[in-house]
Amino acid sequence: MSVNSANLTLHTDKYQINMMYAHWKNGTADTPAVFEAYFRKLPFGNGYAVFAGLERIVKYMEELCFGEEELAFLAEQEERYEPAFLERLRQFRFNGSMYAMEEGTVVFAGVPLIRVEGTIFESQLIETALLNFMNYQTLIATKASRIVQVADGDTLLEFGTRRAQEADAAVWGARAAYIAGFHATSNMRAGILFGIPAKGTHAHSWVQGHDTEEEAFMKYAEALPDQVTLLVDTYDTLESGVPNAIKTARWLESQGKQLSAIRLDSGDLALLSKEARKQLDAAGLPHVKIVASNDLDETLIFNLKAQGARIDTWGVGTQLITAADQPSLGGVYKLTARWKDGRYVPVIKLSANPEKVTTPGRKDVFRIRNLNTGLARADYIALCGEEEKPDGSRLKLFDPLHPYIYKYVNNYEAVPLLKCIFDKGRLVYELPSLSQIRQFHQEQLNSFLPEVKRKLNPEFYPIHLSEKTWQMKMDLIQQHQE
Amino acid sequence: MSVNSANLTLHTDKYQINMMYAHWKNGTADTPAVFEAYFRKLPFGNGYAVFAGLERIVKYMEELCFGEEELAFLAEQEERYEPAFLERLRQFRFNGSMYAMEEGTVVFAGVPLIRVEGTIFESQLIETALLNFMNYQTLIATKASRIVQVADGDTLLEFGTRRAQEADAAVWGARAAYIAGFHATSNMRAGILFGIPAKGTHAHSWVQGHDTEEEAFMKYAEALPDQVTLLVDTYDTLESGVPNAIKTARWLESQGKQLSAIRLDSGDLALLSKEARKQLDAAGLPHVKIVASNDLDETLIFNLKAQGARIDTWGVGTQLITAADQPSLGGVYKLTARWKDGRYVPVIKLSANPEKVTTPGRKDVFRIRNLNTGLARADYIALCGEEEKPDGSRLKLFDPLHPYIYKYVNNYEAVPLLKCIFDKGRLVYELPSLSQIRQFHQEQLNSFLPEVKRKLNPEFYPIHLSEKTWQMKMDLIQQHQE
Repeated sequence: MSVNSANLTLHTDKYQINMMYAHWKNGTADTPAVFEAYFRKLPFGNGYAVFAGLERIVKYMEELCFGEEELAFLAEQEERYEPAFLERLRQFRFNGSMYAMEEGTVVFAGVPLIRVEGTIFESQLIETALLNFMNYQTLIATKASRIVQVADGDTLLEFGTRRAQEADAAVWGARAAYIAGFHATSNMRAGILFGIPAKGTHAHSWVQGHDTEEEAFMKYAEALPDQVTLLVDTYDTLESGVPNAIKTARWLESQGKQLSAIRLDSGDLALLSKEARKQLDAAGLPHVKIVASNDLDETLIFNLKAQGARIDTWGVGTQLITAADQPSLGGVYKLTARWKDGRYVPVIKLSANPEKVTTPGRKDVFRIRNLNTGLARADYIALCGEEEKPDGSRLKLFDPLHPYIYKYVNNYEAVPLLKCIFDKGRLVYELPSLSQIRQFHQEQLNSFLPEVKRKLNPEFYPIHLSEKTWQMKMDLIQQHQE
Repeated sequence: MSVNSANLTLHTDKYQINMMYAHWKNGTADTPAVFEAYFRKLPFGNGYAVFAGLERIVKYMEELCFGEEELAFLAEQEERYEPAFLERLRQFRFNGSMYAMEEGTVVFAGVPLIRVEGTIFESQLIETALLNFMNYQTLIATKASRIVQVADGDTLLEFGTRRAQEADAAVWGARAAYIAGFHATSNMRAGILFGIPAKGTHAHSWVQGHDTEEEAFMKYAEALPDQVTLLVDTYDTLESGVPNAIKTARWLESQGKQLSAIRLDSGDLALLSKEARKQLDAAGLPHVKIVASNDLDETLIFNLKAQGARIDTWGVGTQLITAADQPSLGGVYKLTARWKDGRYVPVIKLSANPEKVTTPGRKDVFRIRNLNTGLARADYIALCGEEEKPDGSRLKLFDPLHPYIYKYVNNYEAVPLLKCIFDKGRLVYELPSLSQIRQFHQEQLNSFLPEVKRKLNPEFYPIHLSEKTWQMKMDLIQQHQE
């Protein structure tokens, strides 16, 4: 089979197929079930995460289809699946319902981000891909959002493709970074696929490919006079690179053009940027920007800014595209209810680790926003159905870990966060454009206190369970322990 | 454009296109150039790395082609590329030569892993993709090889898809792990694409989807009686999971079948595996294997084995597929020579960091193997051409950082490591099968001392430069400093 095959139906773990087979054999394949996807812990010690990956998930689910190659492959497996099972797969389409956060939503640990209601058969197949897409894009959007917070309005470029974990990561990571507020990417494929602005200038090899750095700069400026950013660290940044860039700027001026920027890619970026700024200013080139790159992340950018580095634009590569300090989100997809005797019954998974015990039931999520300030106060998880939906009247919020600590809120609006994406197999959600998602994320951030958004030791944003949800969890834990 | 597009020609950074454009404008596009790809530092503190990614690179290079959609996208860019340039791209094919290590080769820092000889135009385009593919697969093969070393013959399963950095990483990572000695993957797409054995049983949701754990186990065994591995930690591993698995084993025996294994996925794996082993043995089930998973890596496996954990099979997910402790290799692609006045002239890139100074010249790599022991003694980097090729006569090996320290070797064989893959655009290398690569890697490992292969503080394996290479580097450094 060609590795270029676009069919992602087998982008799943074998145990999903085996469970589907066993349900089919046992006649339970069509039992309705509810799964919820969430993560247990915010990444990077951040105060929030940025949900992303929905568009990828939607496209994947629309295109799910076992083709002849896939079926032939399945027929060869050691499990010796019966032909009638493969025939059932041949007819497979996702006909369930899916509810999800919108991309760009500010989200938190323990909150259902996606809820799938379908047959156990179809809901099981999609687990792996859904987590794979959600985990990576949410991780990178969150990492990028941290960088956006510290960059404080500076221009941010995503430069990570060569260090990305293969080709998909490069483009979906660039997209996630753009959602979180990055301004452009170096990746051309992310440009063509998603319409993200693509930016780039030249590498060291351009300079090495000419007899002198001065000649290299001049030749580049002659070829692309409107878009000149010169990389100044091939030989010696301050002794050679910046002076040669200034000469090039002079020539550009003679052509009625301007040098856009210089780029620093090694050495002490604090010192070099300040000295380069002085040289440029002394040469009457205050408009020439300084771009910096070299293993940057939010901590380095924060520290460089604190040192007064004169950097206007940050090129961020490896650390962002791999989320280097925590390269996986750890999102999970758990069965929370199953159909039995004509109704959904909640189910639980226990664990020796209390934080790994699941919260049972089919649940909705509401963001409780203060009507005076517009600020988000807490997220509130309640069982689906009108009865549990916060209606604006006095609402009791208690700490699920210490339920004897509680308070009441009034004067709030309860914004439902999970939108219906698929209704019985039909896509009912209009996918927003990427720029709409990026804008929506910015609006989301505006409704949180700055203290929730700070990089180090952010304020904890509370997640509450409704009393019924909490009581159901307690009852099920007790039931299994006895 | 569809995100399913298989065209990876724009899987590149914009600066490559801009440099290509500037060379084209300046009439230097067809200048021959030599680029070498290598990494500066071994990942994970390991003593070696495992080269991988070549097959992906070869397919990519064969399929390079700017289609109409790509050209239309380029025509819209702010650089306003001239139509004649786009016309040139329309004709683009890679017509250069490429030399590379074979996949599975044990490789080291500072050694050219790929050498590209082509026009500067074509050599520049491929940099980003080539690094992206090489960096990720080499990284994961190396991580997997570390795990294989500590597993010491135990069965290893790759389980990481849901935490992989998007879909490509899942399959190419599974392939890299298999090259390094893993036995199977959970990823079905890696199975269909590469023929890697795919394995899997059931998840917690299978157990939660039934009224009791016992019923769930029985139903699974009835459906797939030949392949039963039961996940025993949904409620209580030792009180419920293992006893229920034993009941299922009894039923399987009554059907003339055997329970294959139980799987532990949480809790103290040392303790639980020992206790589960005791229960299984006491029940007369010594043949039932114990599979363990839950954020395993080489350190945890090493420690669990040291504690006498009774685990037969290790399911390794997140930590492997993301190379969590160092999620990027940091491979670079540097211009080392360019054509001028009828010959290649070596070029260098200086840096404030001495380890970032490039080694100039068009170079080959030889593995110096002792003819008596068969063991690899050192790698030897020499300028291309017969004159520098080690011929078996006394060879001086000196430390490039401390060149006054040297020794002579005799009685060796100098094995050239870089194979010709493309010769002037033509694929001249027969891609080995995946099982051949896996076998080749095993043979490669056999030629290294165990001390080079140990996980912690491995013995340093020396990399030498020929005297001419070293002298050329010194001359160029001096020249640029004066």
